[in-house]
Amino acid sequence: MIKRIGILTSGGDAPGMNAAIRAAVLTASVHNIDVIGFHYGFNGLLDNDYQTLLPQHVQHIIQRGGTILKSARCKTLHTAEGAKQAAMALEQLQLDALIVIGGDGSFRGALAIAKYYRGQIIGVPGTIDNDVDGTDYTIGFATAIDTALDAIDKIRDTADAFERIFLVELMGRHSGHISLAAGIAAGAEQIICPEFGTLQLGSLKEVITPIKHAQLLRGKSSYIIVVAENSYPGGTTALAEALSEELGIDCRACILGHIQRGGSPVGADRILATKLGSYAVEQLVAGANLMMAGEVNQQAVLYPLGQTGDKKKPIDPYLVRWQQLIASD
Amino acid sequence: MIKRIGILTSGGDAPGMNAAIRAAVLTASVHNIDVIGFHYGFNGLLDNDYQTLLPQHVQHIIQRGGTILKSARCKTLHTAEGAKQAAMALEQLQLDALIVIGGDGSFRGALAIAKYYRGQIIGVPGTIDNDVDGTDYTIGFATAIDTALDAIDKIRDTADAFERIFLVELMGRHSGHISLAAGIAAGAEQIICPEFGTLQLGSLKEVITPIKHAQLLRGKSSYIIVVAENSYPGGTTALAEALSEELGIDCRACILGHIQRGGSPVGADRILATKLGSYAVEQLVAGANLMMAGEVNQQAVLYPLGQTGDKKKPIDPYLVRWQQLIASD
Amino acid sequence: MIKRIGILTSGGDAPGMNAAIRAAVLTASVHNIDVIGFHYGFNGLLDNDYQTLLPQHVQHIIQRGGTILKSARCKTLHTAEGAKQAAMALEQLQLDALIVIGGDGSFRGALAIAKYYRGQIIGVPGTIDNDVDGTDYTIGFATAIDTALDAIDKIRDTADAFERIFLVELMGRHSGHISLAAGIAAGAEQIICPEFGTLQLGSLKEVITPIKHAQLLRGKSSYIIVVAENSYPGGTTALAEALSEELGIDCRACILGHIQRGGSPVGADRILATKLGSYAVEQLVAGANLMMAGEVNQQAVLYPLGQTGDKKKPIDPYLVRWQQLIASD
Amino acid sequence: MIKRIGILTSGGDAPGMNAAIRAAVLTASVHNIDVIGFHYGFNGLLDNDYQTLLPQHVQHIIQRGGTILKSARCKTLHTAEGAKQAAMALEQLQLDALIVIGGDGSFRGALAIAKYYRGQIIGVPGTIDNDVDGTDYTIGFATAIDTALDAIDKIRDTADAFERIFLVELMGRHSGHISLAAGIAAGAEQIICPEFGTLQLGSLKEVITPIKHAQLLRGKSSYIIVVAENSYPGGTTALAEALSEELGIDCRACILGHIQRGGSPVGADRILATKLGSYAVEQLVAGANLMMAGEVNQQAVLYPLGQTGDKKKPIDPYLVRWQQLIASD
Repeated sequence: MIKRIGILTSGGDAPGMNAAIRAAVLTASVHNIDVIGFHYGFNGLLDNDYQTLLPQHVQHIIQRGGTILKSARCKTLHTAEGAKQAAMALEQLQLDALIVIGGDGSFRGALAIAKYYRGQIIGVPGTIDNDVDGTDYTIGFATAIDTALDAIDKIRDTADAFERIFLVELMGRHSGHISLAAGIAAGAEQIICPEFGTLQLGSLKEVITPIKHAQLLRGKSSYIIVVAENSYPGGTTALAEALSEELGIDCRACILGHIQRGGSPVGADRILATKLGSYAVEQLVAGANLMMAGEVNQQAVLYPLGQTGDKKKPIDPYLVRWQQLIASD
Repeated sequence: MIKRIGILTSGGDAPGMNAAIRAAVLTASVHNIDVIGFHYGFNGLLDNDYQTLLPQHVQHIIQRGGTILKSARCKTLHTAEGAKQAAMALEQLQLDALIVIGGDGSFRGALAIAKYYRGQIIGVPGTIDNDVDGTDYTIGFATAIDTALDAIDKIRDTADAFERIFLVELMGRHSGHISLAAGIAAGAEQIICPEFGTLQLGSLKEVITPIKHAQLLRGKSSYIIVVAENSYPGGTTALAEALSEELGIDCRACILGHIQRGGSPVGADRILATKLGSYAVEQLVAGANLMMAGEVNQQAVLYPLGQTGDKKKPIDPYLVRWQQLIASD
Repeated sequence: MIKRIGILTSGGDAPGMNAAIRAAVLTASVHNIDVIGFHYGFNGLLDNDYQTLLPQHVQHIIQRGGTILKSARCKTLHTAEGAKQAAMALEQLQLDALIVIGGDGSFRGALAIAKYYRGQIIGVPGTIDNDVDGTDYTIGFATAIDTALDAIDKIRDTADAFERIFLVELMGRHSGHISLAAGIAAGAEQIICPEFGTLQLGSLKEVITPIKHAQLLRGKSSYIIVVAENSYPGGTTALAEALSEELGIDCRACILGHIQRGGSPVGADRILATKLGSYAVEQLVAGANLMMAGEVNQQAVLYPLGQTGDKKKPIDPYLVRWQQLIASD
Repeated sequence: MIKRIGILTSGGDAPGMNAAIRAAVLTASVHNIDVIGFHYGFNGLLDNDYQTLLPQHVQHIIQRGGTILKSARCKTLHTAEGAKQAAMALEQLQLDALIVIGGDGSFRGALAIAKYYRGQIIGVPGTIDNDVDGTDYTIGFATAIDTALDAIDKIRDTADAFERIFLVELMGRHSGHISLAAGIAAGAEQIICPEFGTLQLGSLKEVITPIKHAQLLRGKSSYIIVVAENSYPGGTTALAEALSEELGIDCRACILGHIQRGGSPVGADRILATKLGSYAVEQLVAGANLMMAGEVNQQAVLYPLGQTGDKKKPIDPYLVRWQQLIASD
């Protein structure tokens, strides 16, 4: 029987993590389970840095960006020694279970601990990158899209006024989920992301061909290229410079960066986080272990924690086709 | 073979309708199909009020609220005479098909015309209310939630400062989709919507019991009740007055109203609209008739236009349970 | 010498109050002055409900709506007995001075206390209504305008789509500052506010004449009327109903209400609040008493606390003339 | 007598330029003056690229970012030949006056034309940088601050979660108006701008000293540095790298770039633009020439167009002192 659980947020923070913490704490309270929140991800486990989490501690945090527990990466866990130490901390605090909110890197950390820990572990997918298998969406993805969109809409205003080419670099680690979604929603003229094939240094032909095509078709007008990070060897600024030279048009890079991780979560993220944070506690009570709480087709589901990074969840093929069709028109 | 199609937006307007128009026009252009846009919904058909829609006419409308074609209700269609006249207009303009963007009321209008029209008709679900069967979400729903959320978050600021009870009335016609989603995302202390049972005039007990319970538990603090329109006989203002009197606490009603229909669509609505607007044209080309283009489990699908209002798509049972569990805690 | 001051927020809360509290606490810290924050306005004084405010307590509150000290009205102060009791509380807590953030009503409360209090009192103008003399702008006014604007822009989207007349009621107590500013910034077709003359029940002619004029000139199009609260005897909803009947056009009322008090303060309010919160402390140190810290022509200035409600600060005459000129065109 | 005027937007575009165009067109209409809008700044003059501007062309543009007339820089004007040609175009179009919306660079262009032009010329200050003498604020400044603020608030969320140092680069050409205002409004721990003295390459001591001081005082916490563009020889990214190395803490640069130029203008910018666009037309009618329409102490005023770049309008000394006081605490 579960009497006491720990919870932590790990890896890159994502809007909605607070909503997940809140839902877990409120649901635990209904089940008379005590909750402890560790600070700075797994580091809080190793450093004995934590706080009790009662319902009043999570009041009115559902709308707040960031995470009240702070997040961090933790290299110590990569060693068996570190994992053992973390497991020991859990035992000493008499925790029957641990909830890890983060991406698949954080889940690997959780699995490392699991080897030495007798309690249950459950993951909740919290990352703006949406690159976690076993769930349609990760917590933070919807907000990151809208943040990116807001920025691209603003650039559209000035791009229209000035008629330059703008390259907007979005996050996504090694996946194009954010770039494809934000690019299509912004009506971007071109989207460059890993799934569309990596660009080689200097080989700009595939980028330039559609630009020239569009110029012919539409004359003077704005042209926005959404670029997923890690798409061009020297970075997006280097790509912009190379394009400027090649085309003789002023091409500007805009690197959105960490703005995408912040902000008050949108409704979709708050609801997903509420659902999964609550479901995680309920499934721990039901005996789940080494699973991730995800949502597939609007249903909360469990998925093996060890497989969340296996398949590289593909981006929406319909949208891929749409972009290629329209961009080539 | 489809050479020429008409398109219109009908009923209550919804954010994302422009994105759907744009996607249809761009996709039609790829298929060398001409597009005509009717103004003011079906009225444009009857009044011969329309415009040609070329790709340049839909440039940079993806981010704009409202609908460039204007929307309206149209009572003339309720008569056989009106429907006949509309069909005749379609024939005279040599339109091979018609795309109707709207809710199930608009689809009934389309079906009335279909009796007298030889071309194809396809529907695209555009309404903030999300009360259309055959699609997980309607275009405009996600934006309406975030607009409502933004308002409730602001009220929370002042509610926290002042410690009154606030009742926030949201739209939804006869369904609680918006109220449930926005209420949960806002962390509302109570949600009143048709699916939870209609309130009788004067019988305030079910509203008051959880308030008193919360007061006991949490002392002085803010309390927000999200109320779906049409939930209380005299309206939400009357409900607030009745509660004020009964409780001896100042209860204020805030009626969000048409704000929920406007605003730049969020990413989710722009993407859904892009997908369905494009899919509608592709399915017309493939021969579809009297169908609605919807999205189920992230896949574009067809659904019989005549059945879109049959089942009263239920609200998410997990969220219903969550609210009842937490509200009663 | 000032060693210890109290601070409180009183009356209707306003975005930026937190920024003013923060600035006062940080500035006090520089001067080695201790700060105590009273809860719920003057009630905290009477109920002995307060907290110590150190710099770490005001970290990252600059961007938060509402007030961490809560706000409230306080009727007890209206009696000499209440004022005496409040003054005594200040003396017992050994407070050398009190900072009151609020509107002119709150300042009257402060003056009532001053009769029995040996310490210094300074006011900081915090109210969305901007109806305080001695300062160009009050804290919260700029944010309230942008909140109202955001709502009216959204209504414009749907008004354009549907072509109805919308009446949007804004706050302002007995002044038209918010309505004039938001109305002009939104391009409202008509603005009704106390400074333009009060409407009599049933006498709708002055409202209707410009509507008919606009219809003639511009045909079918959206028409938005911004209405300051307290402008029509039965309220804005009654006005909308009367207009609907008179004109035979659907006229809808939208009452923004308390949304206008919440939300993260805009830059202008955060800067004004920072300046005045800091200036108030510096002026207390310099010996100021029974003054308000205001800003005139970008300079922080002092103004007699007893005169802040005397003149009824007028709305901008240039904007008044603009609206009358354009509306009658 | 003025019968016909031209208008153009020049230089970097700024939110509110559309509102200024609208106000000028509506005011001209009241005075029965025809208006022509040139495209792409002065280029439209040279290329004969313009459009008639009637009241219906400026309907509902008050809330839109960018400029419907497009903006651009124009090097041809730097030669006497170019200026002559532009003046000739004005004469040929029988324009009695020209309104130039832009910064002091655009005003120099206007003055160059004036040597060869018999009509009147008036400037309207439109630039996000606020670096124009003769007006308290320029059109676009208030919106740029709020856009920057929104981004910094988001970075604060993730900075708090992760506890890194973030450097946020803001625009401003050679002035710190935006950086100081946004930095103070965001509660930035440090602000680097030209007015505070230029940094030498490699000499990081003045940046590092307050960081170390803050670490001692406040322990682990977020630290945000707002950096005006052109403040460090190699750029803000280079500064971040140098700091990372020196401090052994991860320092990230975020370059906001052109996002700051876009977006729907905030209320303050719409109102200022409405006032100045209208005032410019009225003053042309009254005979003004080679003047700029500005606003000082809430009053519309004229200022010699040739002196708008002379004084380098200083940043607010009170805020400078505040930042230095607090940052060193």
